[in-house]
Amino acid sequence: MTTNSSNTMALAPNTSNKRETICIFGTGDFGRALGHKLIQCGYPVVYGSRSTKITNLIPKDAEVLGHAEAAQKAAIIIIAIQRQHYNFLTPLAEILHGKVLVDISNNLKLKQYPESNAEYLAQLLPGSKVVKGFNTVSAWALQSGTLDASRQVFICGDDVEAKQMVMNLVRALSLTPVDKGSLLAAQEIENYPLQLFPMWKFPMLLSLGLTVFFFLYCLALDVIYPYIYEKSDVSFYIAISIPNQVCPVMALVLLGLVYLPGIFAAIIQLYRGTKYRRFPDWLDKWMLCRKQLGLIALAFASLHVVLSLVSPLRTFESWRTSRRIVSQALNNQTEPLDNTDAWLSDSYLALGILGFFLFVVLGITSLPSVSNSVNWREFRFVQSKLGYLALILCTAHTLVRGGDWFLSPSAYKWYLPNVYMLSLVIPCAVLVVKCVLILPCIDKPLTQIRQGWERNPKHSE
Amino acid sequence: MTTNSSNTMALAPNTSNKRETICIFGTGDFGRALGHKLIQCGYPVVYGSRSTKITNLIPKDAEVLGHAEAAQKAAIIIIAIQRQHYNFLTPLAEILHGKVLVDISNNLKLKQYPESNAEYLAQLLPGSKVVKGFNTVSAWALQSGTLDASRQVFICGDDVEAKQMVMNLVRALSLTPVDKGSLLAAQEIENYPLQLFPMWKFPMLLSLGLTVFFFLYCLALDVIYPYIYEKSDVSFYIAISIPNQVCPVMALVLLGLVYLPGIFAAIIQLYRGTKYRRFPDWLDKWMLCRKQLGLIALAFASLHVVLSLVSPLRTFESWRTSRRIVSQALNNQTEPLDNTDAWLSDSYLALGILGFFLFVVLGITSLPSVSNSVNWREFRFVQSKLGYLALILCTAHTLVRGGDWFLSPSAYKWYLPNVYMLSLVIPCAVLVVKCVLILPCIDKPLTQIRQGWERNPKHSE
Amino acid sequence: MTTNSSNTMALAPNTSNKRETICIFGTGDFGRALGHKLIQCGYPVVYGSRSTKITNLIPKDAEVLGHAEAAQKAAIIIIAIQRQHYNFLTPLAEILHGKVLVDISNNLKLKQYPESNAEYLAQLLPGSKVVKGFNTVSAWALQSGTLDASRQVFICGDDVEAKQMVMNLVRALSLTPVDKGSLLAAQEIENYPLQLFPMWKFPMLLSLGLTVFFFLYCLALDVIYPYIYEKSDVSFYIAISIPNQVCPVMALVLLGLVYLPGIFAAIIQLYRGTKYRRFPDWLDKWMLCRKQLGLIALAFASLHVVLSLVSPLRTFESWRTSRRIVSQALNNQTEPLDNTDAWLSDSYLALGILGFFLFVVLGITSLPSVSNSVNWREFRFVQSKLGYLALILCTAHTLVRGGDWFLSPSAYKWYLPNVYMLSLVIPCAVLVVKCVLILPCIDKPLTQIRQGWERNPKHSE
Repeated sequence: MTTNSSNTMALAPNTSNKRETICIFGTGDFGRALGHKLIQCGYPVVYGSRSTKITNLIPKDAEVLGHAEAAQKAAIIIIAIQRQHYNFLTPLAEILHGKVLVDISNNLKLKQYPESNAEYLAQLLPGSKVVKGFNTVSAWALQSGTLDASRQVFICGDDVEAKQMVMNLVRALSLTPVDKGSLLAAQEIENYPLQLFPMWKFPMLLSLGLTVFFFLYCLALDVIYPYIYEKSDVSFYIAISIPNQVCPVMALVLLGLVYLPGIFAAIIQLYRGTKYRRFPDWLDKWMLCRKQLGLIALAFASLHVVLSLVSPLRTFESWRTSRRIVSQALNNQTEPLDNTDAWLSDSYLALGILGFFLFVVLGITSLPSVSNSVNWREFRFVQSKLGYLALILCTAHTLVRGGDWFLSPSAYKWYLPNVYMLSLVIPCAVLVVKCVLILPCIDKPLTQIRQGWERNPKHSE
Repeated sequence: MTTNSSNTMALAPNTSNKRETICIFGTGDFGRALGHKLIQCGYPVVYGSRSTKITNLIPKDAEVLGHAEAAQKAAIIIIAIQRQHYNFLTPLAEILHGKVLVDISNNLKLKQYPESNAEYLAQLLPGSKVVKGFNTVSAWALQSGTLDASRQVFICGDDVEAKQMVMNLVRALSLTPVDKGSLLAAQEIENYPLQLFPMWKFPMLLSLGLTVFFFLYCLALDVIYPYIYEKSDVSFYIAISIPNQVCPVMALVLLGLVYLPGIFAAIIQLYRGTKYRRFPDWLDKWMLCRKQLGLIALAFASLHVVLSLVSPLRTFESWRTSRRIVSQALNNQTEPLDNTDAWLSDSYLALGILGFFLFVVLGITSLPSVSNSVNWREFRFVQSKLGYLALILCTAHTLVRGGDWFLSPSAYKWYLPNVYMLSLVIPCAVLVVKCVLILPCIDKPLTQIRQGWERNPKHSE
Repeated sequence: MTTNSSNTMALAPNTSNKRETICIFGTGDFGRALGHKLIQCGYPVVYGSRSTKITNLIPKDAEVLGHAEAAQKAAIIIIAIQRQHYNFLTPLAEILHGKVLVDISNNLKLKQYPESNAEYLAQLLPGSKVVKGFNTVSAWALQSGTLDASRQVFICGDDVEAKQMVMNLVRALSLTPVDKGSLLAAQEIENYPLQLFPMWKFPMLLSLGLTVFFFLYCLALDVIYPYIYEKSDVSFYIAISIPNQVCPVMALVLLGLVYLPGIFAAIIQLYRGTKYRRFPDWLDKWMLCRKQLGLIALAFASLHVVLSLVSPLRTFESWRTSRRIVSQALNNQTEPLDNTDAWLSDSYLALGILGFFLFVVLGITSLPSVSNSVNWREFRFVQSKLGYLALILCTAHTLVRGGDWFLSPSAYKWYLPNVYMLSLVIPCAVLVVKCVLILPCIDKPLTQIRQGWERNPKHSE
């Protein structure tokens, strides 16, 4: 043994040990990491291994025995071996009878096997009480003790008492057990650590694509066009000016896309006259990623706010201000304040600020701990009423800002509409259709349908 | 049956079904939505109905039987019928004996009946195990699968095992059961979905009233007064300038109102010499909505910050800057920097930034997941120490900013004090009384009283 | 009895009382507060006390009896007496046999006794079922009803049924019980309310020290130096200008310190050739407070953002702008826009905004409810990938901003480097070493080591 492993064990408490012995089958990485941690928390640990000789990697205070011997010493046996070796356990069925087996295995990819590893283990050893757990914790985290991430350990199993024993073990390691029900949940628990933001994939890709498109669009109109036709080099627009055109456009488009599927759903339900038929798949998926779309829209809106607020700090802006004022001074006059301009600029800013404020409130409400503390009625109120209000305010903000462009022909460089006009298509469409949908003559049947009424129940016989 | 309902059922897993049969009494909207969802999750569903003929609305894979027959097929029976029809169940008492009855009913308004529906059901069928649950989930959400809001399902019941069975059912539908204890909690659970931000009602109304008052006050002094006496039209102040006066005033007043009830409570306890007598009702209610008042104050403070930061982007401000600089240029001179002005402006800004920073920290601490992870001592430290520091900084910020007004007589338009002065009344009063309260000679008896000591225990005999 | 105590009891429900009687031993502050609360929630309460005469402090509706008599009336007995008097309970062992004893005691300081109070109680009365709980709730909070802070009540105990009974009691008081497992957890639960941000102590002290150092450093170079050598009084820099130098420096240094221990850990593991030896203590502690360091860095970065954004509102800045423009006007010319300057200023701002944006995303991810909803892989992705990206962007932001200083000799006042250079040391070192560590020839063995491989397993025998 290395002299340092005694150092490793310094944390083992010297108090009279009241913890029950835990057996670990398998001396792989996770088995060893878990053993270390268990010994630190005061549990006697015994490893079950085919060869009892390779003991140098194993925590010093742990015993290493044959599988059968080790199993007999403990009520809880942690199965830290890979699924393909599970059949080695069948000869031990008698010894493992009545024992709590903790399946901690993970797969390498989703849907690798037809049934979950834990259910497979339970089929192999029907006399044992299989509990799924610990697979969502990383060995590296257990080892280093830096469990900054989730301390939740998902647990499932068919035997309530066995589950309780494993949950107590989890708590003793300063982790939080979360009961996920019967062993049928094992599939879900095994898939959990393999995911990488599955709900974010589509919204992220969509946003990336749209951002690239709008960036190139603005680049062409605002940098390349003046370079070709006016020989002016404003390439520095790339850093702030163009991002500050792309961000608000993205925020508005994505916010529109959050409310568009609800519009589609209402139209489909009105057309079908029932709510008891499933939506098309694309609409289902779209509706499920509305929260993510909204949060990305909020991120773009926030960037837009900061990009706008820093503009007085830009060399370009201070140069523009100087030029404007110096030319006034040289002309020996001050321009009077145009009241209409003051109104436009102030109302434009006020609309934007209010819209952003509501947007942030929506964002805060979608934090898990906040949305858990509101009931369904409150959530609907915030997300639907406040959300539409935010959409109206942001659309108005853009309309007031971009109003000039619609009329001035010079705005149509290369016969292309300004990016502000493009951004308004979806939100305006959503708002117009929504206005139609809340007309009493349309809202009434829609509400009835959503309460379970069907237009042609007979015809469906 | 419609050909589309097979489409609906496409999600039903084809794996060997290990789920137990669930019986649903009632074919109303929620009963059908829940049935759909259960079948999707792999549960065999049997409906109990008086007429077994209207089957077209019911999920295809579900059976429809008479109540008695249906009940015999399942251990868990979901009662999806309205409370006024519960007495129809009494003849079935024998068949329902020992069964788990899940009461999912909601009322239309608070306090509609003396006892909760679930307790009423338990009285009607004393041999059954009644569990309250699912009433906080909306049928629409179950149907559309878009459970963005809380996935928590509150469960209560007197039988632990029955509760466990229902909690497993909840988990199988990818929802999170929350055990609320015995059936006595049913009343609270039934009231929960009827609420619409009950704690926010008073703070919101108060804020709205104060906002309207201060808005009109500022409108009169800053827009109407100059229009009448100076014939100048500054109506565009309505968009940014006046909101940016109202928001800081509201933030400061509400922050003062957060700490005022604590002051009253201390005075009342000192006067009475005991903490074992209840506060007047108005004080109790006020103390319970301090968090909401603080969060609204934070919202106003945030708006104030953004409204202030956008000011360089305003046409009005850029016109003012131009006028100032052009007049300097035309006078052929640059004004020197006034060190006192620089100090005042910078310290005013610095105080505001620090105050707002602490305010945001307080806001973050009141997020449910953050406040759950601090203990009582830490929470008190943040909310009391940091809160008072924020109040002091914000009051100082306003004092430095509004200091000029106090002295200059021209500020008193129509003999009315400036809105800054009004805003300082409550915070200054709170800070002065608080300073008195932390004097050792007053703090000591107060601490004793709060630790349970009473001044006149005899006299109360 | 005081006439007011009837007032206190007004909340006691008049409904047919179905709650079981609760016995409280001890009439101290917490015992009385809990009794009040229990009676309000409909529980009959009986106090056990040596003298049954001092009844005036006790809630009116409560009975006061001798210990033995009181204990016989209830299944749950709350032990609201201090640990040093626990041995008075031993004569009652027979009466308390089989009863649920709730230990609610707290100690005055950490590690006051070798074993927890609850375990001591369980040793004294081995026939009773001891449950630890309620100690994290403050009497003042129970009394005033203002439970704004955590509503969580940690519960532990060896008897599952007894624990369930106490958890139901907790729920009935509108609190949330959290099962912490067996009675071994009592020590942790008793220590919990004594803590005051233990994880924040070191990061806070470090930040405070560094802030003071950098503040004095900037004060010397930017205020004292010009005062001595240029006779110019810019003392108002203290309010905004110097904080806005200190904050970004602190944010960058602390962000570097978040990633430095990971670098050290990798080097140590590479050197040792194994991950199964503990890191030195200082490194362990450092790694455990990385989250706190990061959040403090975020706070400084946020202050830096606001301090920068307010600069156009400063009197000093508007004076500087005036002077610059007036001098241009008097010279009868407008300076042309320097494209390089425009690029530098815009890219400097854009880098800062993006870096801050990622920083905020990291901050949001570290909210408990958000980090609980991501799995380990997702957390690693955000904290490691996005974190390093934020570090790179912020370092680049500082490099572009401070680039001039490196070259101009006038920057070295008193032969001291500018504060920007100091701030770059740690982040640049981290980034350089990290670049080396991700070279394939070094990354491969490191990954193997982290998966459990050891370089010299033999030598450790």
